[in-house]
Amino acid sequence: RIMRPDDANIAGNVHGGTILKMIEEAGAIISTRHCNSQAGEPCVAALARVERTDFLSPMCIGEVANVSAEITYTSRHSVEVQVNVMSENILTGAKKLTNKATLWYVPLSLKNVNKVLEVPPIQYARKEQEDEGKKRYEEQKLDRLETKQRNGDVILPVINPEPHTVGYSQSSLIHLVGPSDCTLLGFVHGGVTMKLMDEVAGIVAARHCKTNIVTASVDAINFHEKIKKGCVITVSGRMTFTSNKSMEIEVFVDADPFVDEPRERYRAVSAFFTYVSLSKEGKPLPVPQLLTETEDEKRRFEEGKGRYLQTKAKRQAQMQQAAQ
Amino acid sequence: RIMRPDDANIAGNVHGGTILKMIEEAGAIISTRHCNSQAGEPCVAALARVERTDFLSPMCIGEVANVSAEITYTSRHSVEVQVNVMSENILTGAKKLTNKATLWYVPLSLKNVNKVLEVPPIQYARKEQEDEGKKRYEEQKLDRLETKQRNGDVILPVINPEPHTVGYSQSSLIHLVGPSDCTLLGFVHGGVTMKLMDEVAGIVAARHCKTNIVTASVDAINFHEKIKKGCVITVSGRMTFTSNKSMEIEVFVDADPFVDEPRERYRAVSAFFTYVSLSKEGKPLPVPQLLTETEDEKRRFEEGKGRYLQTKAKRQAQMQQAAQ
Amino acid sequence: RIMRPDDANIAGNVHGGTILKMIEEAGAIISTRHCNSQAGEPCVAALARVERTDFLSPMCIGEVANVSAEITYTSRHSVEVQVNVMSENILTGAKKLTNKATLWYVPLSLKNVNKVLEVPPIQYARKEQEDEGKKRYEEQKLDRLETKQRNGDVILPVINPEPHTVGYSQSSLIHLVGPSDCTLLGFVHGGVTMKLMDEVAGIVAARHCKTNIVTASVDAINFHEKIKKGCVITVSGRMTFTSNKSMEIEVFVDADPFVDEPRERYRAVSAFFTYVSLSKEGKPLPVPQLLTETEDEKRRFEEGKGRYLQTKAKRQAQMQQAAQ
Repeated sequence: RIMRPDDANIAGNVHGGTILKMIEEAGAIISTRHCNSQAGEPCVAALARVERTDFLSPMCIGEVANVSAEITYTSRHSVEVQVNVMSENILTGAKKLTNKATLWYVPLSLKNVNKVLEVPPIQYARKEQEDEGKKRYEEQKLDRLETKQRNGDVILPVINPEPHTVGYSQSSLIHLVGPSDCTLLGFVHGGVTMKLMDEVAGIVAARHCKTNIVTASVDAINFHEKIKKGCVITVSGRMTFTSNKSMEIEVFVDADPFVDEPRERYRAVSAFFTYVSLSKEGKPLPVPQLLTETEDEKRRFEEGKGRYLQTKAKRQAQMQQAAQ
Repeated sequence: RIMRPDDANIAGNVHGGTILKMIEEAGAIISTRHCNSQAGEPCVAALARVERTDFLSPMCIGEVANVSAEITYTSRHSVEVQVNVMSENILTGAKKLTNKATLWYVPLSLKNVNKVLEVPPIQYARKEQEDEGKKRYEEQKLDRLETKQRNGDVILPVINPEPHTVGYSQSSLIHLVGPSDCTLLGFVHGGVTMKLMDEVAGIVAARHCKTNIVTASVDAINFHEKIKKGCVITVSGRMTFTSNKSMEIEVFVDADPFVDEPRERYRAVSAFFTYVSLSKEGKPLPVPQLLTETEDEKRRFEEGKGRYLQTKAKRQAQMQQAAQ
Repeated sequence: RIMRPDDANIAGNVHGGTILKMIEEAGAIISTRHCNSQAGEPCVAALARVERTDFLSPMCIGEVANVSAEITYTSRHSVEVQVNVMSENILTGAKKLTNKATLWYVPLSLKNVNKVLEVPPIQYARKEQEDEGKKRYEEQKLDRLETKQRNGDVILPVINPEPHTVGYSQSSLIHLVGPSDCTLLGFVHGGVTMKLMDEVAGIVAARHCKTNIVTASVDAINFHEKIKKGCVITVSGRMTFTSNKSMEIEVFVDADPFVDEPRERYRAVSAFFTYVSLSKEGKPLPVPQLLTETEDEKRRFEEGKGRYLQTKAKRQAQMQQAAQ
């Protein structure tokens, strides 16, 4: 679809959140269709996880986004979908790859939302495809377990913070979940949640460096628990790490099922977003360094540095491979 | 209401689709109100057909759209509504007629969506009004039948197409039907469908001529089948004909009731849109000629030429009448 | 326009914020049109103040909102507009008055946004109308000055609050101001701000009493300062007072012009919203009493009680007058 002014920041760059939302809609359609392709209980595919994804080139207002999706692996209860986003300038005809994302869905019964159904298996062209898919499946399963354990953390408010400290830029928003945020089952679309997360992360980044900022990448996002229509969700973000030219922001989504439900507030999603700051000409700018104050902040900074160096090493390895 | 940046293209011209959506909302309100004006089963008016409509002058961001609607004919089971759209520049006070549209609605029971109810008759000031209305009613009925028969056609993807061929500009989008797209009965508003159709047609036109384009007219649109909440709809468009200064694009809407329904994908709507290309000063530009390759494309081009010449002849006849 | 699922809460009642937004759009159109009715510098009317307004009867999904606006007084630099909202059930034809609101607008030059232009005077049918209008004008001017002085107050976060305390239900959201939130001048529409304010107030009320809640009235809202495109706005709300069956919530709007602006965060708007809690049958429910802890909270509770008793006395006086 055509990118509109509301999809973009004041510099005309489309928000990463808008792109994530389109990716998720494509993934949900293809996996729901696949899971209903055999006679059996009707179901809706719910997003369980998005693998780490890089935003390769910015998209602008007036460009057309072409989204294509393909099922690349099925386990007994989950579907792996690969989604590609191309941006097309319809005036010049120029096309660029904007995003490649891998998403995992789980089919939930339309009649009983807590029942996970079986996924019809796909056929692989080569045996290796199945083996590689299985490896990816095992890896993500492990990672999901790990994140779940990290989940007690909360973002506490800070009174009168100094510029460039964690407390200075941390932000949160509340959102009342309405009907058009939800699937047929009455649960929030994963894409809607990711869009709100990107919005908060973007505000944290902009508050920190006070320039035009864009999403560079999103770490793997795990959807631990469903969020129901009528909930209030609190999306909070804090900066965890800065390199010379990038900022890492941790984002939490907490759901508060406050009407007619005895349940407590719970952590539904968490993820790391990486942002870069751009000059008016679109070149990356140096970023003010994050001032860490508490022990926890210092620890999180070191962890963020670890993730940053790991990603950098991976990317260099890929580039060397590509150059050979 | 006031036209906002999201209602318009990058040159500031409001999308034809936004205008069609407002027209349909006005039509649905007046005809639902009329059909419930007598005691009886409560019902909702569903759009069955929009007659050919011309976009007489472009509307811009910041202008106010004034929409007025009037019932002009009733048959036993259908209502004809005439809707006028005026654009008003509230800074200068200037008003212009943007659109005149004629829509046909059918009342469906709120209790049983497959039951068509009877329409309370309206009073005509003069007998001729009733006779003319009846003539329009018979004509549209015939035309509806004809289009239904054409409906098997599909748009197939083309690999590596040449510029200005049909395959080069053809486009499609998919949309998951959400609650706010729907009427009280859980079916997609006709206006929502028309807005998506205009969006796809606009992308086809822009891909073909790579300039700022605006909707000039829409051929009669027949709504053959209802589209239910939860469906995935595929809206596809291809260019069928070019004159010196206009492009005709055929748009199909197919619905895929993929959850909870044993039903096959079906053609719900089809229509022809005409676009013109505008210079930065708003003057019509010459359009690159469409290159037809297959026999089918050549046949459709000739059919499009027929429609073009017919419309041109009608318009000249009207102008001569007006001049007399 | 027709009320959609997205305009309403889960019980189907349309949000007060949606209605306030429609009211403001109608007021902005009529006053911009009036201020440009004489040759002179083109201008856009900016919302300066909304008088206290009561929501007389709830509106539901599927009903049509009819909004009508009339200019009732003009001073040299401001316009008073009276807006009425009727809800119409198009199935039964029943119409009810939902709202009566009075708004004040000020014409700002399109060329220089800091220049307030002169308003063309209207003609009054009777001299008393002008005198009464002048009285209302003087009263609101005084009240605007008073609120401005109260404006230093901020809502501080509370760690681990007890149920029914002020800290327990207080809430805030952040919103990045996008193009479609703005007028031609690039400033946020008053209606957009009021919609966000109602959203936050509603969440505060729901967190406090955990039932279905609806807006009962909004105190006079003063728009002290304009908010520019690209700002981040923080909308925060806290409960100030509870009677047996109503809750008063104070809402602040602060703007953070963080990109490319040397300016500090400033208070743009503040107001009091009153909510009631409804049972499933739509009857008012008793409200849990607010637990005040600090001296400030106790003082604000007493002030709220004062406003509550004053409004109650006024309403009884009106009813007695009406009965005579």
